[in-house]
Amino acid sequence: MTSYFIDELKAGVERRGTPCAVGIDPLWERFSPALLRDLGWGETGPASAEDGAAGLERFGALVVDAVHDLVPAVKFQMAYYEVYGSLGIRALEANVAAARNAGLLVILDGKRGDIGATSEAYARAYLSGSPLSPLQGDALTLAPYLGTDSVDPFIKVAKETGRGLFVCAKTSNRGGALVQDVSQDGRTVYERVAAYVNEAGRAVMGECGYSNVGIVVGATAAEPARALRQSFPHLLFLMPGLGAQGGDAEILRQVVDAEGFGALVPASRSVLYPHLFGHTAQDPKTAIRTACQALIEETAAALSQ
Amino acid sequence: MTSYFIDELKAGVERRGTPCAVGIDPLWERFSPALLRDLGWGETGPASAEDGAAGLERFGALVVDAVHDLVPAVKFQMAYYEVYGSLGIRALEANVAAARNAGLLVILDGKRGDIGATSEAYARAYLSGSPLSPLQGDALTLAPYLGTDSVDPFIKVAKETGRGLFVCAKTSNRGGALVQDVSQDGRTVYERVAAYVNEAGRAVMGECGYSNVGIVVGATAAEPARALRQSFPHLLFLMPGLGAQGGDAEILRQVVDAEGFGALVPASRSVLYPHLFGHTAQDPKTAIRTACQALIEETAAALSQ
Repeated sequence: MTSYFIDELKAGVERRGTPCAVGIDPLWERFSPALLRDLGWGETGPASAEDGAAGLERFGALVVDAVHDLVPAVKFQMAYYEVYGSLGIRALEANVAAARNAGLLVILDGKRGDIGATSEAYARAYLSGSPLSPLQGDALTLAPYLGTDSVDPFIKVAKETGRGLFVCAKTSNRGGALVQDVSQDGRTVYERVAAYVNEAGRAVMGECGYSNVGIVVGATAAEPARALRQSFPHLLFLMPGLGAQGGDAEILRQVVDAEGFGALVPASRSVLYPHLFGHTAQDPKTAIRTACQALIEETAAALSQ
Repeated sequence: MTSYFIDELKAGVERRGTPCAVGIDPLWERFSPALLRDLGWGETGPASAEDGAAGLERFGALVVDAVHDLVPAVKFQMAYYEVYGSLGIRALEANVAAARNAGLLVILDGKRGDIGATSEAYARAYLSGSPLSPLQGDALTLAPYLGTDSVDPFIKVAKETGRGLFVCAKTSNRGGALVQDVSQDGRTVYERVAAYVNEAGRAVMGECGYSNVGIVVGATAAEPARALRQSFPHLLFLMPGLGAQGGDAEILRQVVDAEGFGALVPASRSVLYPHLFGHTAQDPKTAIRTACQALIEETAAALSQ
């Protein structure tokens, strides 16, 4: 039988003792001075797409190396790799391979979604496990503006291959209200999306009791998160927005179950760029590892309060 | 002064005498038997990602060659290239370059969108004109599930570089209703998105009287299209869904202005894969060119009724 992403995630969270994941969003303008020096870039950044992609590859490998035994998963933000075109995607392929080799689950954060046939192509690209498609994630994020039939092809592939999905429901940014908070007959768009995912996701329930298709719920949206948890106890929440984006760690305690499972918390800026938060004394790898350990401790403290 | 995509598009539509564009969605399963033979694939398709990407590159070049003097623009559906990872994106880069060299405007159909900083990275990747980012479109499609601040960074870059945007409002697929048709205080999500685009797009009005930021409106949604046109006379409609998806050509006449401008109509399957519609007598390039000419004639007939 195919093993499900969600069950592997639960095992990983238990093994590492944390629901934290590291979000890899490499933007050279945020690299530490030490790393910029290593790359020979200084303040002007990369001189070419090749140079930029090489920097991303090196940075991603450094992060994977620094955190692989601390967290169960990493989330790659595809946009930052797409900046350098095919060379950037090649760097992402290398980073994904490094992460998997190091035992990490890989979430591709691409917010994909389109009409049926095109969603099918995206699912093939990122979740099919086909040797023809070299950039494979263990899970992928979706943006459901195009609705039910934009999500269905992904769920079909997720069922076949066991890979996971996270469909955006209520995101961490304020502007999401334009679409997500629109409410008809007492139900908002984000509730409708979550209900659809909940229903469609019954086809891919993991042994752990959670569906292999989860939702994205920003940690900045405490009330909606609580309400969604009450309505949908079997959906895992991918929950960005703690810390840098202003989310309150307390909400975490309210959305996890008795075993502490139910949310995966990706953190990016605070872990990747500790020098931006005043931690400048260490080499880049040690600084990232230390920041990741601090994140894990803070999260554990919030969960045990 | 930076010239705007929307003004170049108007000039192109006038020069070619048609609002049709060709949507390049290359899926090898739909390639003609003649092309499959040329590629040495037969019915089993590509043997590797290299092979698959090479086939896409060849097919895209063939389409560009066949239609470049007939239509003002081509729309590349990114998903089908992403299937082959970095090699697929390299093929897309080659196809985009070929299209631009042939004088075509290039729309990248990627339905991108994320929170602010990440949208900024996508805008850099596809619209910045930076030599560091080799995959540049003249315009990009966005999916606005993440709302206002997911769209704003693109509009900022569109203003700086003159490149265009099409934000999904009411798409051609049925399932879009889950999100797009939800209505509060008498206004649907798609109307709210269109209104936001209309407002934000005032910052980038072209000389032709249309905003450089348009919306995607499926040709299958005749009533919504009419209503959106009445409310938003300055938004160009990217209008897929005629023909293969069941859209009625009559709606076109109702959304264009006195000069016949106001909509861009991408067609994909009927042009790229005429053998699937019973036209099997010609070599692939001639078949595609003939199908494109037929599309242009049908559209002209619908517009002049």
